[in-house]
Amino acid sequence: MTMLTDAPRRRQIEDVASALFRASGYSATSVRDIARALDMQGASLYSHMASKEDVLWSIVDRAASAFEEAAELALEAAPARDPRARVMALVRAHVGVIARDPGQASVFVAEWRHLAGDRRAAILERRDAYEARLRSLLADGMAAGEFALADPAIAATFLLSALNGAATWYREDGRMSADQLADQYADLALRTLTEDTR
Amino acid sequence: MTMLTDAPRRRQIEDVASALFRASGYSATSVRDIARALDMQGASLYSHMASKEDVLWSIVDRAASAFEEAAELALEAAPARDPRARVMALVRAHVGVIARDPGQASVFVAEWRHLAGDRRAAILERRDAYEARLRSLLADGMAAGEFALADPAIAATFLLSALNGAATWYREDGRMSADQLADQYADLALRTLTEDTR
Repeated sequence: MTMLTDAPRRRQIEDVASALFRASGYSATSVRDIARALDMQGASLYSHMASKEDVLWSIVDRAASAFEEAAELALEAAPARDPRARVMALVRAHVGVIARDPGQASVFVAEWRHLAGDRRAAILERRDAYEARLRSLLADGMAAGEFALADPAIAATFLLSALNGAATWYREDGRMSADQLADQYADLALRTLTEDTR
Repeated sequence: MTMLTDAPRRRQIEDVASALFRASGYSATSVRDIARALDMQGASLYSHMASKEDVLWSIVDRAASAFEEAAELALEAAPARDPRARVMALVRAHVGVIARDPGQASVFVAEWRHLAGDRRAAILERRDAYEARLRSLLADGMAAGEFALADPAIAATFLLSALNGAATWYREDGRMSADQLADQYADLALRTLTEDTR
């Protein structure tokens, strides 16, 4: 067995906690459940984490960063004046983050509300900023005559709900690869934004 | 103050529990929290309910019935051979159930997994049957050449995630009426299913 430094051990704790939070929810998962899944004693687990909320925060913060960075990179690489390509790039990036770590994404989507105080406020702010970025892409597309939307804010919410749904059901060992999921979701998302002209 | 018979009292308990489960999650809500919100003693609350899970079951079962009955009525009233009209009718019915009682719908969407045993199995089966109905409407639309979908199962999941998202954010006192929400979501849903022909 390889020696683990603290960083990978901590990451291992977060991964196990993500899986448990995804399956049973944050509140229904105890520190003892996490320790048991790692074959550790509770006391020794506490040498790697201050509290259950501390682990939740690490997972949610890491997920938020993953979504933000993927969006940033995707939009830098996408053509500046092609709203369709930009939305497709953002959707593919978003779905890619979910597919790479559905446990982490599912905790971000469903369990962030168990954070309190400043942490909760910080995540709410980052979620809002992320959604605002999508809204602004939709508004760009409307201005360019590419998207026909009655209400870009509602469309952005509709889309993010659809995409985030994948966090609860997607499995890396399931019938779809991450690329297939991204292709299908990007296609469905683009249709949602464009007028049915038949 | 009017005398309450047991049935409305029980319904009142379920409504208060729905709101608390929606805000904090099922696991994080105690029977004491429910009693406090109703200004009741825990012991007196237990004369109206066997357990917290019993209340969860009532809410989820009632929500499932509301979705099923609304879909049934909407599809009976919709033209038999018009897949677009049938999907629109189902989406409007689904969104209507959410808008009429977002608390109940949100518990159905997010908290059903806290049910155990037969109850959990029964709800899973009803959710599957409901999703299968949407899938079959999508397949009808593909057969009729109305919808162009690479994978109707994925499209059905995408759509239900988008619609169910409204359960977490929709407020009866917010800026949109239930009808406006249904109109917008039905429009976005229909676009999602139809080919972008530009």
